[in-house]
Amino acid sequence: MRSLLSPPALKPGDRVAVVALSGSPGKQEVDLGLAALRSVGLVPEVFPSVRSVGPYPYLAADDKVRAEDLTRALGQPGYAAVFCARGGYGVQRVLELVDWQAIGAPQPRVVVGFSDVTALIEAVRTHLGWVSVYGPMVSSVMFRTGVPSFEGLARLLLTPEKVTELVFQDTRVLVPGIAEGVTVGGTAALIASSLGTSTSVPARDGILFLEDVAERNYRLDRVLTQLRRSGYLDGVRGILCGTWEDCGPLAEVEQLLADRLGDLGVPVLLGADIGHGVFMQSLPMGLRARLDTEAATLTFAEPALVAGE
Amino acid sequence: MRSLLSPPALKPGDRVAVVALSGSPGKQEVDLGLAALRSVGLVPEVFPSVRSVGPYPYLAADDKVRAEDLTRALGQPGYAAVFCARGGYGVQRVLELVDWQAIGAPQPRVVVGFSDVTALIEAVRTHLGWVSVYGPMVSSVMFRTGVPSFEGLARLLLTPEKVTELVFQDTRVLVPGIAEGVTVGGTAALIASSLGTSTSVPARDGILFLEDVAERNYRLDRVLTQLRRSGYLDGVRGILCGTWEDCGPLAEVEQLLADRLGDLGVPVLLGADIGHGVFMQSLPMGLRARLDTEAATLTFAEPALVAGE
Repeated sequence: MRSLLSPPALKPGDRVAVVALSGSPGKQEVDLGLAALRSVGLVPEVFPSVRSVGPYPYLAADDKVRAEDLTRALGQPGYAAVFCARGGYGVQRVLELVDWQAIGAPQPRVVVGFSDVTALIEAVRTHLGWVSVYGPMVSSVMFRTGVPSFEGLARLLLTPEKVTELVFQDTRVLVPGIAEGVTVGGTAALIASSLGTSTSVPARDGILFLEDVAERNYRLDRVLTQLRRSGYLDGVRGILCGTWEDCGPLAEVEQLLADRLGDLGVPVLLGADIGHGVFMQSLPMGLRARLDTEAATLTFAEPALVAGE
Repeated sequence: MRSLLSPPALKPGDRVAVVALSGSPGKQEVDLGLAALRSVGLVPEVFPSVRSVGPYPYLAADDKVRAEDLTRALGQPGYAAVFCARGGYGVQRVLELVDWQAIGAPQPRVVVGFSDVTALIEAVRTHLGWVSVYGPMVSSVMFRTGVPSFEGLARLLLTPEKVTELVFQDTRVLVPGIAEGVTVGGTAALIASSLGTSTSVPARDGILFLEDVAERNYRLDRVLTQLRRSGYLDGVRGILCGTWEDCGPLAEVEQLLADRLGDLGVPVLLGADIGHGVFMQSLPMGLRARLDTEAATLTFAEPALVAGE
């Protein structure tokens, strides 16, 4: 596959965009996240979607407002990063409206978020070819000064050359082995919800990351079965699973993962501290990496962001 | 599009297959449904999946057992119809295992079911080119002697020439008009769960039927948005919506339907008594039909099944 573009590393003084493409973030929670960004020297600009009201309780702002924010945050010069304020649902509505032709081919910048933002990370890769970061969102308790998940994210964004490997502490090996590929994936139900659209990124030649939240057993089965049946998993090199928060007893989830992912003939590691319900590590997406199930590590072939001017 | 094959009408004395491809049906409930089939002169044969135990609480039997049952019910001579015993989830796992080459091109027979069986109706159309019936399932309270939903189904299957039109009593017109096309669709989340697979049937040139159960507002939004973004809705001629059981307040659901389906430039009628939570009318799928929103009717260009030997 062609190489993706790694955005420049962030540096103190950089202006960064904060947008709400999905659910409505609380004002106090956003303010705490903004303080965290400022604590590492970044200069956050809050876009209108963050302080708006949407047409439905689950949308932070009108589709048009969210799409305008995203278009500007991705395309307008002067923003070194795009931080998503909250997850929930809504990115896919925005993707219907975004004018990628108008965005053109701007200077790469790092997009940060997870959960519903899975769909944006896919779209940014499809349309712009950028490496992104599957990481905590601004209004989350994970995005606070001094909290390991935020400190880890800041280290990745500001000193990417120091983050050469993720190490996982509490893993189970479903299928042992070593695999090399380009990181891809995210929240399983969101990946499935992109199938058939122009922004879906198949797992071929990839190290696929999967996690999810609040999907009952049969729903998770349906999602994984769709990934199998659609060819999404064809040619995948290895699989790393994160958290399955509120998806039922973990033993049952892992039985299902064994059933749906264990026969693909590739290494599968369970239990990474990435996803919902945990102080997550941030995972660069679109980056060449090596999964080692025995060592419980994911080692990157190069920095996620490129240092220096 | 090419014409689909209408199966022969059923007649008293016909042997019919009863299979459980999804969840496990209750024995007493199945027995009541079998009695209903016998009451109209049919000779039901209960396949092993109906009386089995599955690997997960939500599966009626092992995938292999369910796939063998489906293969035999569709392909083996001597069965005039295939009735599904229950919905839930599981058809898509079966579709991974079914050997369509082995089934070949048997004498058409009518497949009856809804909800999870949406995926089977799509697959039967894709692989065999048959008209099917979106109708009640054997273990359901709708499938009982004397109950209108069963009597309507029996009329459709045994005297299809008498069922030329469905009339809906409690409808709202979202977009007025008249549209002609081939019936397609089913439970919205199931349609979305087939996207990207070889058995998905796009709505092009179709009268699309949609209903769903137990999908929260943002989930239903995500499903409808995926249908939009994937091109599934491209070229649809008209849309008929059924019930939205346990999907939140109906007014909110219909606001969402207006949002996601109201701008397609085709007639849309809401409130058909087809789907979950209602004594449903049976809807032939794959049949040329005319939707008239003002009259609140769906008129068929030909019988769903062909009479005589």
